[in-house]
Amino acid sequence: MTDRFQQLLASIKPVDMNLSGAIQAHLDDLTKPLGSLGRLEEVAMKYCIATGTAEPSLAKKKLFCFAADHGVAAEGVSAYPAEVTPQMVYNMLGGGAAINVLSRQAGADLEVVDMGVNHDFADHPMLRKRKVRYGSSNMAAGPALTIDQTVQAIMAGAELALEAHAQGYDLLGTGEMGIANTTPATALYSVLLGVPVASITGRGTGIDDAGLQRKVEVIERSIEVNRANLSTPLEVLAALGGLEIAGICGLILGAASVGVPVVVDGFISTAAAVCAIKLSCKTSDYLFFSHLSNEQGHRAVMQKLGARPILDLDLRLGEGTGAALAMQVIEASIKLYREMATFSSAGVSGKND
Amino acid sequence: MTDRFQQLLASIKPVDMNLSGAIQAHLDDLTKPLGSLGRLEEVAMKYCIATGTAEPSLAKKKLFCFAADHGVAAEGVSAYPAEVTPQMVYNMLGGGAAINVLSRQAGADLEVVDMGVNHDFADHPMLRKRKVRYGSSNMAAGPALTIDQTVQAIMAGAELALEAHAQGYDLLGTGEMGIANTTPATALYSVLLGVPVASITGRGTGIDDAGLQRKVEVIERSIEVNRANLSTPLEVLAALGGLEIAGICGLILGAASVGVPVVVDGFISTAAAVCAIKLSCKTSDYLFFSHLSNEQGHRAVMQKLGARPILDLDLRLGEGTGAALAMQVIEASIKLYREMATFSSAGVSGKND
Repeated sequence: MTDRFQQLLASIKPVDMNLSGAIQAHLDDLTKPLGSLGRLEEVAMKYCIATGTAEPSLAKKKLFCFAADHGVAAEGVSAYPAEVTPQMVYNMLGGGAAINVLSRQAGADLEVVDMGVNHDFADHPMLRKRKVRYGSSNMAAGPALTIDQTVQAIMAGAELALEAHAQGYDLLGTGEMGIANTTPATALYSVLLGVPVASITGRGTGIDDAGLQRKVEVIERSIEVNRANLSTPLEVLAALGGLEIAGICGLILGAASVGVPVVVDGFISTAAAVCAIKLSCKTSDYLFFSHLSNEQGHRAVMQKLGARPILDLDLRLGEGTGAALAMQVIEASIKLYREMATFSSAGVSGKND
Repeated sequence: MTDRFQQLLASIKPVDMNLSGAIQAHLDDLTKPLGSLGRLEEVAMKYCIATGTAEPSLAKKKLFCFAADHGVAAEGVSAYPAEVTPQMVYNMLGGGAAINVLSRQAGADLEVVDMGVNHDFADHPMLRKRKVRYGSSNMAAGPALTIDQTVQAIMAGAELALEAHAQGYDLLGTGEMGIANTTPATALYSVLLGVPVASITGRGTGIDDAGLQRKVEVIERSIEVNRANLSTPLEVLAALGGLEIAGICGLILGAASVGVPVVVDGFISTAAAVCAIKLSCKTSDYLFFSHLSNEQGHRAVMQKLGARPILDLDLRLGEGTGAALAMQVIEASIKLYREMATFSSAGVSGKND
């Protein structure tokens, strides 16, 4: 397993920036003032570079919603009880969750991945069973996961990406469901990006002031308790992460290894992306950050990463909702790139000179 | 004509805020943490209030791209020659402009309205002929339009909105094409919102520093020359506006009069929206501002209006491109409102209390 994990990391290739000249030349020949499509042009450029072509296609999109439970929920860090994790998985399988609505609108296929929900699900066409264990351990008392479990979860995510690539998907999106998971995500940010816990801890699904104070204390205690096992990004992810976070990290690494761009959802998914980038910095060239979460701390994280998310809609729901919305903007940029007339073909005059 | 214009203004009714309780109750019953869909919930609320129902539908969308020429182009305020206006209209009729791509993606029907292009077009199924005259006069030397011409253009836009309403369109979008039209738009903002010209004058399609200085001087001169005829919003629109701007203003007023929400594109369309709001302040309850334009000045205008646009993608193309993109976000919010499961129906637990 560890060998395959090292092979996965080694297989992520740097993108070919030499393509940028041809891509920019095409963007500048489209019938519009130079640069007037703003960030849509940046998105098209990044997509082309990531997929390694100046003639991009974007026909098939898929969104994976990774679900898992968290032992740290026992510390009272979430406004909702842990049984909401399986309940919301059932809601997704029934088509009634927000991510069902938005992935339908985006024309993206949706699958829910059980990475470690504390519940046994029957088979369902939308459900992928990749359970590593029935939820993580309480990280405030020791490591959330073992290294082996973490690698197993990463590899499960990576294999889903490779499978999707083989099925012809051009663009993947991340999402998650897991009561209490802003707590491990915040711990990961604090350690991996060197940010004080209190400055980035937010209210998640809606805890009150006392809950927020408790959450900060639990995260600080978790980091302290696990201090001896935080030497590498993999150790950090094992000690302070969770199974859905590791699965998303793996999806990102797998997609990057085959040149498929990934749209990263919000606060939790970004924590998984930070793990992936720390494991292989080349990964960042394959990532789109979909939206600025309303979860306190996401703005600081985006600044640390030097990233400007595509949307800013005050979302704090997760599931992949921001990723599904941003997929439509990315698709718009590729449609413009492919379908607009050029100055020469349309007989439109250029600038006065 | 003036009687019908006064009737149009009088027919715009205030929205019924009493609906907000029922709408909020439904939003809060959807299977998500309270308020976690952020601005999508605000958008759904506004759409419901504007359309006067807690059970909204959004089945048919239409975008109108209004085109006209501007006498002030002779002052050298644009980077592109005036003949680009009809060339770009032909590009739209041929399906190759950015707005064609984005309205197709949004599932919105598109029509181009010739309000006053300095060119005679043959009939075309996508073209609506509403030409008032072959472009406006040079506002730096006197009024751009007469009051009668302005009212005629407004009423043409209003009638398109009424027709679309009769055809069952639920949501309309604005767009425009008219070389030099950031110049009249900036003049309108300066007078109607009381903002210094230099602080909001931008580079439009891409003029250089000398051109920018000239543009400021031309706008200031235009305001000075027309000073005696700037007593009412209608006079301001006539003296410093343009035919596509008046047409958009009319579309907004007409749509508001029948309770159809309008998605306002960028810098030019917002100037038309400001005219409409100054003519009838109730209009603002029917408007969505689609995006923050990269045109210098739009941010200050949005702050003056107390509005936060839906998107921020550094677009500065016009045509309705931002409106088409924002339509998809508005549609997402209505789909979520209509299609998500409720807590009771889905058997999902609520918050810990």
